[in-house]
Amino acid sequence: MGEVEEVKLLMTGLSPFAGRIIWALKLKGVEFESVEEDLTNKSDLLLQSNPVHQKIPVLIHNGKPVSESLVIMEYIDEVWNQTCPLLPADPHQRALTRFWAKFVDEKAFASMWSALQMRGKEGGEAALEEAHENLRILEKELEGKKFFGGESIGLVDVTFGSFAKLLDVLDEVMGSDKKMIDEDKFPLMGKWKEQLSELAVVKSCLPPADKLAAAVQARRNESAAA
Amino acid sequence: MGEVEEVKLLMTGLSPFAGRIIWALKLKGVEFESVEEDLTNKSDLLLQSNPVHQKIPVLIHNGKPVSESLVIMEYIDEVWNQTCPLLPADPHQRALTRFWAKFVDEKAFASMWSALQMRGKEGGEAALEEAHENLRILEKELEGKKFFGGESIGLVDVTFGSFAKLLDVLDEVMGSDKKMIDEDKFPLMGKWKEQLSELAVVKSCLPPADKLAAAVQARRNESAAA
Repeated sequence: MGEVEEVKLLMTGLSPFAGRIIWALKLKGVEFESVEEDLTNKSDLLLQSNPVHQKIPVLIHNGKPVSESLVIMEYIDEVWNQTCPLLPADPHQRALTRFWAKFVDEKAFASMWSALQMRGKEGGEAALEEAHENLRILEKELEGKKFFGGESIGLVDVTFGSFAKLLDVLDEVMGSDKKMIDEDKFPLMGKWKEQLSELAVVKSCLPPADKLAAAVQARRNESAAA
Repeated sequence: MGEVEEVKLLMTGLSPFAGRIIWALKLKGVEFESVEEDLTNKSDLLLQSNPVHQKIPVLIHNGKPVSESLVIMEYIDEVWNQTCPLLPADPHQRALTRFWAKFVDEKAFASMWSALQMRGKEGGEAALEEAHENLRILEKELEGKKFFGGESIGLVDVTFGSFAKLLDVLDEVMGSDKKMIDEDKFPLMGKWKEQLSELAVVKSCLPPADKLAAAVQARRNESAAA
């Protein structure tokens, strides 16, 4: 594209939903400005750009805002379509890709997040089992493939990958003896995470362990004080 | 497309999610076979075609299944792309369309369904207020437009329209004094529903009031007996 592009991302450094967009933009080689939002005091720009949900991430491209991370990723794929396609070309393969991205978003993510919250509490084991049930479904989907997208990274890898990396750092920070995405239980997923880590674009986006540790500690202090 | 197409839809006659797919296929002029599923005794074809969710609707096109109604609609739009586009061509307009379809699916639909379930029970008024809050957001989106898609019917109209029509029939069948999508409260939406009803394709898809009445009565009998 010939014109000068202005690409701004309203985000927070720890959000896996914002993480997806950062991965997608970097994969496409798009220069962008990150604007860190304070969610306890949302900026006017955020409120005006996403009045319905008032949530990050929001991508603002040449002044036009796009919200909802799955919608933003498809937008990025359509606008910057010359390199690193996130969706395949064939309509049936595209449908399967959207199906799995939706599954990660609505089923897998929710169950893993809930299992994290419940860790060490009553019902924690059942929540972990539900998360693992969804991980088993994803593990099966990886059979015979390097990435969910096939030979190269695609929409499902970006949708799930940024969250999977965050989970690993979180497991380490929290010093858990049970990893959420345990490589012994999910060997294909373990291999997949390794392959992701080899990509330069992923290396440059690893979640900041120190900030994450501080955030977890702050939340623990809050619940202890409550 | 030159080849002989085999298009099969696993559905139930009362599902608004299946209703969307029927609208979309009819808008595109695609010949298809409807296969009514008994959800208390799901067919092997359904279980094999959508093993993850085991839910209708599933579209089976030349033997290849696609699940999740929003995903199916985008698939239909991509395969039968010569007529009646459900998504616009411009990437930003496409993103907005996907945003609103998602809003209808995840926010509006859920709140309206919950308000229906709670009708006449404790908390019913609060549930209705939440549904109306989402309807106000949609009403605003219709300002200055004939359809959500602009001058012609598009993805958001199909996503919401098949449900809105079902709600109207349901209101009538249940003899409610408060309509869910009340034309006095939501005049633009009232006009929109009229415009939808004028389309031949929508006329041919109106929900079957007699079957709906029987289903509502059966559910009432069940709760009375419980």
